Amino acid sequence: MSLLIKNGRIITASGDQVADILVEGETIVAIGRNLPAGNARVIDASGLLVFPGGIDPHVHLDMPFMGTFSSDSYETGTRAALHGGTTMVIDFILQKQGDSLRHALEEWSARADGTAVGDYSFHMAVTDFNEETKKEIKGFVDEEGITSFKTFMAYKGALMIDDRQMVGLMEEVKRCGGLVTVHATNGDMIDYLIAKHRAEGKLAPLYHYLSQPEVTEAEASERFAAMSRYTGCPGYIVHLTCEGALNAVREAAKCNQHVFVETCIQYLLLDASLYEKDFEGAKWVMSPPLREKKDQETLWAGINQGLVNVVATDHCPFMWEQKLMGREDFSKIPNGHPAIEHRFELLFSEGVQGGRISLNRFVEVACTNPAKIFGMFPRKGTLGIGSDADIVLLDPNEEHTLSAKTHHMNVDYSAYEGRAVKGKVKTVILRGQVAIDNGECHLKKGYGQFIKRSKVTDHI
Amino acid sequence: MSLLIKNGRIITASGDQVADILVEGETIVAIGRNLPAGNARVIDASGLLVFPGGIDPHVHLDMPFMGTFSSDSYETGTRAALHGGTTMVIDFILQKQGDSLRHALEEWSARADGTAVGDYSFHMAVTDFNEETKKEIKGFVDEEGITSFKTFMAYKGALMIDDRQMVGLMEEVKRCGGLVTVHATNGDMIDYLIAKHRAEGKLAPLYHYLSQPEVTEAEASERFAAMSRYTGCPGYIVHLTCEGALNAVREAAKCNQHVFVETCIQYLLLDASLYEKDFEGAKWVMSPPLREKKDQETLWAGINQGLVNVVATDHCPFMWEQKLMGREDFSKIPNGHPAIEHRFELLFSEGVQGGRISLNRFVEVACTNPAKIFGMFPRKGTLGIGSDADIVLLDPNEEHTLSAKTHHMNVDYSAYEGRAVKGKVKTVILRGQVAIDNGECHLKKGYGQFIKRSKVTDHI
Amino acid sequence: MSLLIKNGRIITASGDQVADILVEGETIVAIGRNLPAGNARVIDASGLLVFPGGIDPHVHLDMPFMGTFSSDSYETGTRAALHGGTTMVIDFILQKQGDSLRHALEEWSARADGTAVGDYSFHMAVTDFNEETKKEIKGFVDEEGITSFKTFMAYKGALMIDDRQMVGLMEEVKRCGGLVTVHATNGDMIDYLIAKHRAEGKLAPLYHYLSQPEVTEAEASERFAAMSRYTGCPGYIVHLTCEGALNAVREAAKCNQHVFVETCIQYLLLDASLYEKDFEGAKWVMSPPLREKKDQETLWAGINQGLVNVVATDHCPFMWEQKLMGREDFSKIPNGHPAIEHRFELLFSEGVQGGRISLNRFVEVACTNPAKIFGMFPRKGTLGIGSDADIVLLDPNEEHTLSAKTHHMNVDYSAYEGRAVKGKVKTVILRGQVAIDNGECHLKKGYGQFIKRSKVTDHI
Amino acid sequence: MSLLIKNGRIITASGDQVADILVEGETIVAIGRNLPAGNARVIDASGLLVFPGGIDPHVHLDMPFMGTFSSDSYETGTRAALHGGTTMVIDFILQKQGDSLRHALEEWSARADGTAVGDYSFHMAVTDFNEETKKEIKGFVDEEGITSFKTFMAYKGALMIDDRQMVGLMEEVKRCGGLVTVHATNGDMIDYLIAKHRAEGKLAPLYHYLSQPEVTEAEASERFAAMSRYTGCPGYIVHLTCEGALNAVREAAKCNQHVFVETCIQYLLLDASLYEKDFEGAKWVMSPPLREKKDQETLWAGINQGLVNVVATDHCPFMWEQKLMGREDFSKIPNGHPAIEHRFELLFSEGVQGGRISLNRFVEVACTNPAKIFGMFPRKGTLGIGSDADIVLLDPNEEHTLSAKTHHMNVDYSAYEGRAVKGKVKTVILRGQVAIDNGECHLKKGYGQFIKRSKVTDHI
Ligand SMILES: [Zn+2]
Ligand SMILES: [Zn+2]
Ligand SMILES: [Zn+2]
Ligand SMILES: [Zn+2]
Ligand SMILES: [Zn+2]
Ligand SMILES: [Zn+2]
Ligand SMILES: [Zn+2]
Ligand SMILES: [Zn+2]
Repeated sequence: MSLLIKNGRIITASGDQVADILVEGETIVAIGRNLPAGNARVIDASGLLVFPGGIDPHVHLDMPFMGTFSSDSYETGTRAALHGGTTMVIDFILQKQGDSLRHALEEWSARADGTAVGDYSFHMAVTDFNEETKKEIKGFVDEEGITSFKTFMAYKGALMIDDRQMVGLMEEVKRCGGLVTVHATNGDMIDYLIAKHRAEGKLAPLYHYLSQPEVTEAEASERFAAMSRYTGCPGYIVHLTCEGALNAVREAAKCNQHVFVETCIQYLLLDASLYEKDFEGAKWVMSPPLREKKDQETLWAGINQGLVNVVATDHCPFMWEQKLMGREDFSKIPNGHPAIEHRFELLFSEGVQGGRISLNRFVEVACTNPAKIFGMFPRKGTLGIGSDADIVLLDPNEEHTLSAKTHHMNVDYSAYEGRAVKGKVKTVILRGQVAIDNGECHLKKGYGQFIKRSKVTDHI
Repeated sequence: MSLLIKNGRIITASGDQVADILVEGETIVAIGRNLPAGNARVIDASGLLVFPGGIDPHVHLDMPFMGTFSSDSYETGTRAALHGGTTMVIDFILQKQGDSLRHALEEWSARADGTAVGDYSFHMAVTDFNEETKKEIKGFVDEEGITSFKTFMAYKGALMIDDRQMVGLMEEVKRCGGLVTVHATNGDMIDYLIAKHRAEGKLAPLYHYLSQPEVTEAEASERFAAMSRYTGCPGYIVHLTCEGALNAVREAAKCNQHVFVETCIQYLLLDASLYEKDFEGAKWVMSPPLREKKDQETLWAGINQGLVNVVATDHCPFMWEQKLMGREDFSKIPNGHPAIEHRFELLFSEGVQGGRISLNRFVEVACTNPAKIFGMFPRKGTLGIGSDADIVLLDPNEEHTLSAKTHHMNVDYSAYEGRAVKGKVKTVILRGQVAIDNGECHLKKGYGQFIKRSKVTDHI
Repeated sequence: MSLLIKNGRIITASGDQVADILVEGETIVAIGRNLPAGNARVIDASGLLVFPGGIDPHVHLDMPFMGTFSSDSYETGTRAALHGGTTMVIDFILQKQGDSLRHALEEWSARADGTAVGDYSFHMAVTDFNEETKKEIKGFVDEEGITSFKTFMAYKGALMIDDRQMVGLMEEVKRCGGLVTVHATNGDMIDYLIAKHRAEGKLAPLYHYLSQPEVTEAEASERFAAMSRYTGCPGYIVHLTCEGALNAVREAAKCNQHVFVETCIQYLLLDASLYEKDFEGAKWVMSPPLREKKDQETLWAGINQGLVNVVATDHCPFMWEQKLMGREDFSKIPNGHPAIEHRFELLFSEGVQGGRISLNRFVEVACTNPAKIFGMFPRKGTLGIGSDADIVLLDPNEEHTLSAKTHHMNVDYSAYEGRAVKGKVKTVILRGQVAIDNGECHLKKGYGQFIKRSKVTDHI
Repeated sequence: MSLLIKNGRIITASGDQVADILVEGETIVAIGRNLPAGNARVIDASGLLVFPGGIDPHVHLDMPFMGTFSSDSYETGTRAALHGGTTMVIDFILQKQGDSLRHALEEWSARADGTAVGDYSFHMAVTDFNEETKKEIKGFVDEEGITSFKTFMAYKGALMIDDRQMVGLMEEVKRCGGLVTVHATNGDMIDYLIAKHRAEGKLAPLYHYLSQPEVTEAEASERFAAMSRYTGCPGYIVHLTCEGALNAVREAAKCNQHVFVETCIQYLLLDASLYEKDFEGAKWVMSPPLREKKDQETLWAGINQGLVNVVATDHCPFMWEQKLMGREDFSKIPNGHPAIEHRFELLFSEGVQGGRISLNRFVEVACTNPAKIFGMFPRKGTLGIGSDADIVLLDPNEEHTLSAKTHHMNVDYSAYEGRAVKGKVKTVILRGQVAIDNGECHLKKGYGQFIKRSKVTDHI
């Protein structure tokens, strides 16, 4: 079966051309003017922008949490992602301290395999680095195609590794050709502040915010960059939110170091004033928390400076009832917010239509860099001959409004309720199949594949 | 007439695909697998890399200097460039202090028009910004398609403008949609050191180097970035050479500012030890001078960090006899060295084959960014449907040696004599015509066109 | 004649002791408990703080300006200084461009000698550095006891020297054992902004402020520090006002450089909101202008960090009628404000009583560091055996209010009208003579001596 | 009993005067010219420098370690200190994890009380901060006169506290009016490197050095400064050794923070090349290790910039036989080197005579700042009326050579064997008693007193 997408304005991270795209099977085979349709299904893209499928490298689907799970399954989550132009996600496997990486991989695969609608991969979160864990790294890189290893500098006793483990992991991951990613906040300081606020009876969502001040992120980012520099292991900071943390990266640049930086769409668009809404602030309880307007400016600038490489979501939705677990105590509010469906359109609307970033930069941070950094390029992340036919058609001028009533994520509130967006995803193709058209999903549960990834490089 | 380039590995700044390219007339019309040849001339690119034509945005051809001229004319210079994979150059028109911009444009056009073999454009160097000059800016941007305005913070009395003029120019250029570029060194300090060295009888080429210490460049770069930030005018630093200057840019990044940075191939590869060779050092007398090994490391890192955007040459060749004008006094050595022909291959060899940068990054800094920053994208700088068919086929494995005996530049020495290079340009196409093949140039004098450029943006 | 000051709490920059001070002639001869009075006049200092006489190293008395003069003569100015606890000042001789240093010295000496009530010295402002000027430097250091050379990076055409002159001057001053001080603002940028505002009809005092944004000072401070580092000449920045400029110094500290920093009392206490008062803002039209609250914080912190070494005034008073010269055009308002009388008490009140600095630090920045940096220590700036008996008795608890009605400066408005001050100078002694007592000055015009200064060092 | 020290050149941190000092009992009562001798013992100080007694705020005497003790007792250690001009030391009480602060205080007091010859105090090292520990802080400050609390960011499982404890401690110490001091190195990274080197059979003293690279100290210093800034608790970094760490402090200065910095004499004078001497390098095995020449430059500059406030020793001597415990494994070498006797003379010789620092600065960092920062000023640290008569007479021109044969410390090697010193301590007075004269100690064991200290301030 083949598809011919006609007359779209095709945008890649470094291209801008009006042309047709011919797809055969799962693959793009030609881009050109007036390509013959043959027996291909023709999709008219006149007036539309044609992008590579979005890649969200930071999501948490069906994630076990305090006896329950994040509310989007691999099915609902990847389907919602497709609605919003994201054709692939990377989720996180969490090692249980005291247990093996492999065991966690099996557990996560059991939930995802045969369930996902869109394509997916996993980062392997190493929460207990020891001699046994060390032996498993090479197999993940060479055989499982899982080449990125997530670490936590917070959540002591559950997820956190100390700096000794971090340096040890970095040396092993470097040796094997992988990448270490990090949740970079100073967990000890945060634990202190949480305990202090609770002891003082300060229990509202606002105190979630006040327990994770900018310094906790700046400090840890600086520390992570120092360890990455010392070991020479490629490093990647997830969900960087603030000026202090980006300045730590900028300072590290003076030592000729390159550490990749991801921010998330919410840190570009929302700010901490939302925590002043009493318990409604729980909708945006996530870690790190939302920051200030000055931080938004810093992040947009960082994208244009080439220092912020990726815009993700850290999608981790919980139903309002689940959020209510923390009604009496902010520290019990499940962390996370729903965004997997909106990242692509929001970044387009605020970034490109808002005049903050170019079309090429949009594709770079939403599609291409995630693919490159995580070892899937050029199969994913661009529109090239031989690439997977993951394609998004977007009408740049169509305005619409986000709402829990209309979104496709399995969560009963929207973090962006009522927000106006300029630019709407019209058609999405995943590996040659029309996934989304006219607001309908045409793919079945299980269509999504696990994508094996290659060894990584610190040069993209 | 059409061309079909078959089976090459096509690399753009964000693409990597094995495919055919079909060219009709001057334009690329299709990229795909197994494109039908029709009556097109077929060029087999199997095993070759296929790049966009290189763009060197910093050259000086036929430049008047002390009663003589730089030794490459627009003919010999652009032809040599083509031999080395560079299909377009941007030269500098120099306003004469006291005279108009337009008069200088006419003078430069007279030398270039009908002479160039490859495509070209001009930056307009503003050396005397006053009320009359101010009135000319808009016309250059809107009508002449000359949107970048070069300034000098050195060469007082000849080319230098002071900071008052700089800020005034920036405000006007910003208003008109242009870009201010700068030779950022502290000319006053340099003039002092030159005079001091001469007074002390220190007259060898080494003292050219010692008269332009790193601080003179770091200081001026910092100052330029500050003025660009204050005015909001997009800025671009030409031929940045050293750690101190790049750190000034990195520091400016913390103020959320983006200033574009160009380095030149020689600053990545050569170092100041060459000035210890007595008068032979005159071959590399240029401004700024070559720096230290630590600066090379900084520049390569800056490329990977996304902070160094362009690799150019500052090509300004002089015959050895011309260089001899300064035998008794370094300050009389004509500044500049020949590199227009070698930039593309040297950057490929040392950058890509040397494992320092990726293929995509190579294209970004050698082709795409110059086109984007200077308003010629996507017509130039990439391989896309509708783009000019400026195409380079390079054999990544062919090794060869640079020499004045074999180069095509009109200069009787090589700054890279005997240097081994891995990767050789085999075929070059300019606007659909085979320009270089088998080491021969097939284009005539005058084929090269003046390319009008668009308004610029600080978002690329 | 002798004096015995009994039972005061004697504070120096590193001492804190309750004791008696015995003065014989002009000199302190003993400090101790229960010193015998002999035939000495006894002054009871119980409950008072006893400080070294304040030194204000930045004043402009009887300064020629646009056909008139700053309104305090050496008589009225030094007398007012004494009233406020400042026993010595350093004024500025301004070389006339095209003329010699010596000629200016003669002119200034003619106005000061035999006129001053308090002690004084001069900085020599070099506004035209050339081969002739260069020859004069050594004589000023060795014979005149004038070892500090002031430069201006602003006021082109009148006072400014360019960077070539600056570097040349620094090398000569270093060779001779002197110090280069600087008014560090980018005059070219400021000239641009002044002209622009005037052209736009923006003529109120507010535009004086808006014509000298922080960047103009930060940039020049960074540039000056770079030149000082390159030449190795000790440097001193006068009237540093803002975060950007102090950060430039802090950044220079990373290169192991030490550059001395002076701020003025007004930059610690007043802010730019005063410019919003229509023409009344003219009272505070000075260069640099008042800054923001965040800058005040930075300056106080800089004092405690040891990076801001001196608090001066840049006292340069003009009668309201003189200020009115700029009623229609801010650029015609004579620059400067009256503060010579209040610096000591204001710094005590806001710094020490306000809990911002220690008593020792107060003496360090108001007395000792000026003496050390400018080569008068230990004769001046401390209370030691053999030091000049320049002594201030201050009641730390007496509250009073500043006003033009009560001040002793020859100016008809107060820049601090109505400001409450905690701490009052009660008695002042200059070289063993009671200068001020009970609010009366007991010294005659001409008592003040010109103090020859020693070669300087960058180690204090 | 009284003493009259005649005609010395008396130097304090801000004074320089030739005069006599009269001592009655333990106290200075007068400073002046030609003071009457009365029945006082007269000491002729003509031609000598007269300094306040040195204070070494970082020593470890009789410190329990692996079943043995550091080789200097409070008797031998404080006596050796007196020989070298140091009249007071501050030692460290180490809390045992799981045990109370008080219990440790009792243990340490038992060893020191009645034993010391010179005066002393203790820092309280908090190695286990919990609810019980928290309750003890106030008592130490208010009743015991122990106002500084030492922390370790290294030595996990023995001395280290985590950042949660650190922040908690800081808040409590701030509340009580104390100061938190820190051994700032990243213990986790160091533990990793030690284990790695041992696993690789790299067991020589050189690997002690290579296990503690600059980054481990820079990182921890930055982190400590961040926590100090966040909590507002005054902070003090002990034994800072390197450029990276001082730059962290300089960067913190930009946030208007002041954190006190101590370096030690060995980091100013010795460098890591000593570790290349096979096992002899064990003599200088200490933590942090010696660094590079560039770090020495940074530290001297830091002193002149006012950012390095104190020069101490971290004196912790071990006999050669004790050092041999680590012959087969660097990690078993007892850490520390003997310096308590030499600090004052070495700093004078290399600092003052070497032209690197002024006489005043010498006193500031060797005497006055330790007294001020740790709450003993003006009783200790200066020469003022009412101050303890702790006085050192030093002949600035006498040259001598350091050696284990002649030193007074109880250790059988010298870390400075054969080093020439210009300037020799001739006479030392402690609280009015001649302690050292003609190379003999005239004080008995037990003369030394425990000095209660006051609440501290971050303004000195
Ligand atoms: Zn996270
Ligand atoms: Zn996450
Ligand atoms: Zn240039
Ligand atoms: Zn050039
Ligand atoms: Zn000034
Ligand atoms: Zn002034
Ligand atoms: Zn330690
Ligand atoms: Zn210690």
